[in-house]
Amino acid sequence: MNGAESLVHTLLANGVEVCFTNPGTSEMHFVAALDHIPGMRSVLALQEGVATGAADGYYRMARKPASTLLHLGPGLANGLSNLHNAKKAGSGVVNIVGEHAASHIELDAPLTSDIEGIARPVSHWVRTSPSAETVGKDAAAAVEAAMTAPGQIATLILPSDTAWNTGGTPAEGREAPAPSPFEEGALDTAAAALDGPETLLLLGGTALTEENLETAGRIAAKTGCKILSEWSNARMERGAGRVAVGRVPYPIDIALKVLEPFKRIVLVGARAPIGFFAYPGKPAVLTREGAEITTLAKAGADLGGALSALCTTLGAEQTPPAEVAEADVPEAPTGPLDLDKLAACIARAIPRDGIVVDESVTTGRAFSPATKGAAPHTWLNNCGGSIGYGLPTAIGAAVACPDRRVMALTGDGSAMYTVQALWTMAREELDITTLIFANRSYKILRGELTNVGVGNPGPRAIDMLSLDRPALDWVQMAHSMGVDAVRVTECEELEAALADGLSRKGPSLIEVVI
Amino acid sequence: MNGAESLVHTLLANGVEVCFTNPGTSEMHFVAALDHIPGMRSVLALQEGVATGAADGYYRMARKPASTLLHLGPGLANGLSNLHNAKKAGSGVVNIVGEHAASHIELDAPLTSDIEGIARPVSHWVRTSPSAETVGKDAAAAVEAAMTAPGQIATLILPSDTAWNTGGTPAEGREAPAPSPFEEGALDTAAAALDGPETLLLLGGTALTEENLETAGRIAAKTGCKILSEWSNARMERGAGRVAVGRVPYPIDIALKVLEPFKRIVLVGARAPIGFFAYPGKPAVLTREGAEITTLAKAGADLGGALSALCTTLGAEQTPPAEVAEADVPEAPTGPLDLDKLAACIARAIPRDGIVVDESVTTGRAFSPATKGAAPHTWLNNCGGSIGYGLPTAIGAAVACPDRRVMALTGDGSAMYTVQALWTMAREELDITTLIFANRSYKILRGELTNVGVGNPGPRAIDMLSLDRPALDWVQMAHSMGVDAVRVTECEELEAALADGLSRKGPSLIEVVI
Repeated sequence: MNGAESLVHTLLANGVEVCFTNPGTSEMHFVAALDHIPGMRSVLALQEGVATGAADGYYRMARKPASTLLHLGPGLANGLSNLHNAKKAGSGVVNIVGEHAASHIELDAPLTSDIEGIARPVSHWVRTSPSAETVGKDAAAAVEAAMTAPGQIATLILPSDTAWNTGGTPAEGREAPAPSPFEEGALDTAAAALDGPETLLLLGGTALTEENLETAGRIAAKTGCKILSEWSNARMERGAGRVAVGRVPYPIDIALKVLEPFKRIVLVGARAPIGFFAYPGKPAVLTREGAEITTLAKAGADLGGALSALCTTLGAEQTPPAEVAEADVPEAPTGPLDLDKLAACIARAIPRDGIVVDESVTTGRAFSPATKGAAPHTWLNNCGGSIGYGLPTAIGAAVACPDRRVMALTGDGSAMYTVQALWTMAREELDITTLIFANRSYKILRGELTNVGVGNPGPRAIDMLSLDRPALDWVQMAHSMGVDAVRVTECEELEAALADGLSRKGPSLIEVVI
Repeated sequence: MNGAESLVHTLLANGVEVCFTNPGTSEMHFVAALDHIPGMRSVLALQEGVATGAADGYYRMARKPASTLLHLGPGLANGLSNLHNAKKAGSGVVNIVGEHAASHIELDAPLTSDIEGIARPVSHWVRTSPSAETVGKDAAAAVEAAMTAPGQIATLILPSDTAWNTGGTPAEGREAPAPSPFEEGALDTAAAALDGPETLLLLGGTALTEENLETAGRIAAKTGCKILSEWSNARMERGAGRVAVGRVPYPIDIALKVLEPFKRIVLVGARAPIGFFAYPGKPAVLTREGAEITTLAKAGADLGGALSALCTTLGAEQTPPAEVAEADVPEAPTGPLDLDKLAACIARAIPRDGIVVDESVTTGRAFSPATKGAAPHTWLNNCGGSIGYGLPTAIGAAVACPDRRVMALTGDGSAMYTVQALWTMAREELDITTLIFANRSYKILRGELTNVGVGNPGPRAIDMLSLDRPALDWVQMAHSMGVDAVRVTECEELEAALADGLSRKGPSLIEVVI
């Protein structure tokens, strides 16, 4: 058995069943191994940012890692920004990166680069396997690292001779590491802190499962505290029948206002709120001065255990949860679309058990309240702020959950970053309905110019933030990669397009001109 | 004056007149400074790989660096693989990367990352400027680093408070550093080594200018030595009236055969030939065993001086150069296209002073001999092996040389990597004719499977290297980004499309189905 074969056997034995890939010469033995060892679904991407973003989406929905197979340093580099997003989301990913044979590295060939150096800023775990014999155990260690709660980026670099040499030994399956315990010593302080509307229970990570939200709802009902989530959530269960949780807003002035009332804050899987960016003359810490902040559980800890223990300490186990959303979808809007009507159309369209991948940077700020009473669904945010996360993450979610419908909501500027994702959606016939909000600008940056104190920007500055010269034609873009598409400007057109897209087999795209 | 303004003034004073950019919030003060300080051409890219690839192409043709303006670690990360290519090409690039304000970094916001760590593997020079006061002198140092021969990657990281704070002081223009001297001590050895057809003068880098090639041609005529260039050349002057130089072939077995005769090799700007990849059981060093290799000048040294001195030592100053290409274009081929007919069409179409950016990984192996006698032109190769270099590099070449025509030759797989480049071509109305060779596969990898010893690949392996499910529609792809396009399968269609594309204002695309 060669090293490449021991890799595939080890990944399969450890529950890694999907490989998002764009291989090259140095990975050909892995391609051959994937070919003749059954069990691994290989999903080809035309740019590595699609592969790594898909691995992020897969982990969020499957709660276990996929692998990526990337070509040397540049292949890894192309996937780096979506690995950054995955890292910030707490997603586990097993990157397999090919490398030249050891004897070749010292010759400094064109594709030679410092792969470990490229990997390190986005990886929790990096290792270069020295021989075919070590590939199996190193792969098992990589999966274990990736499965360490909440999920980590593990990058295993495999020189091509470790793939083609014999002596490969598959490693056996290991148990996923248990999450770390929560801060039991903080339990009484946390329970005492939550007392009325001036106190906040701030949730993040896996505190946003349906079950954990219900526990949080009981705590809120018992204590009168408010519940919020972080602005960016890797995955939140939402919709009718679930405890509805608002997000700490992105715009700094609004966030400061929302957080101003809270004198005591308890964190479960969340971090104390800070600004996404620094702005001249504005605070970066968003909580009121002197707010008492208690960390009951950090990301990666047993968040369900923390919330249950808090609930028990407060004697709220039987209290009916507060803030349970009632089924409530708006009337069908009519006529030309605006942001509120768009939000209403989306709320009406979300199917039961739908997965919404949200990269609607500016367009989507009204979506959260509007969709509170929609059919029960799962909502994914971009946690690392690097745009181009939406379409790839939708691929991963669809691969993880073939029985669920995926809606990808994205601005045009964001979608262009990893537009190659459309081709993979078509190739894999994934049930993804993509909505492109075509405002034909980096609209968020128009506001940010003002926020950082640049008043009255001139024509060249505005031009640098505009995407309308030429306008992107998303219908032709989608068709060019084998995805059906339609352009809409009216509510009725959007409703029809959503109904069609969400009922058909395979992907479709709707260009929403706003 | 704020730091951002001092940056722009310093770049302009040091001859940096173009900025390839995709800015974000942390770069808004630079956008404002670019807006109100005249002199810097800002070229917007929809993905940073386009921006950095364009900077590579710009340097090759302008012989001076452009700047890039990139958004934090992820923006730099997206540009990393084309920076790898630029580094290997010896291109100078000044990357300006925004960073959070210092006080914000410690809060670990979503977009916080180790920017220096991301920059280092592809940069010769990395610095984070600590204050508005230091931005000017650090920017001047960055340009100086970028201009150090043959050209280097300089990455200057600017926390947003260094941009918005006052105290900015522009630095004055500096002279570009002189190239290092060649190995004068090796001159006699080199002169003695070149003696008949068993000796090779191997050229790279700026040894491939028209003038330096002529000098090499005189040396060859005088000594009977052969001349070759490296496989990957950042820029080579070619065509009728110029000394024609073949490339060391990419396929390892052919390269070994071509190099087998040479007992003595003199290197001027080139490195001793090695394989692009390692293959099981094949050598990585391509020269014959015991070949005597003399390095007269490394990349970055005074290559023109080295060749002139060698020529003088050999008394060849008045010898008419060998291997001067005669004007010789093939007859117009007819009927369905094949690789030889394609090469003939391209040879006929290359306009006087045309710039050919070549990323025709498999399709283009016949182009080099076929175009030897075409109109005088400049040919650019991918030097780092990371695909997706072609379309962005064409942008940079067109921006550097607005009076010259650019032809971008690229495979479909490569073009998809940075397909967003088409939009920038349309926006800037660049005179670029793009030929997409649509073989609908990663064709090179089919061969590489065999080369690394994987015989008889199964259907899943072949599927992982195929781009035909679905086929990409390049005409719609181009249209979606505002570029006119046509699909051709016959020689006559291709000739007509080339004639049209090369005579019109602005970009066009030809999908060549092969």
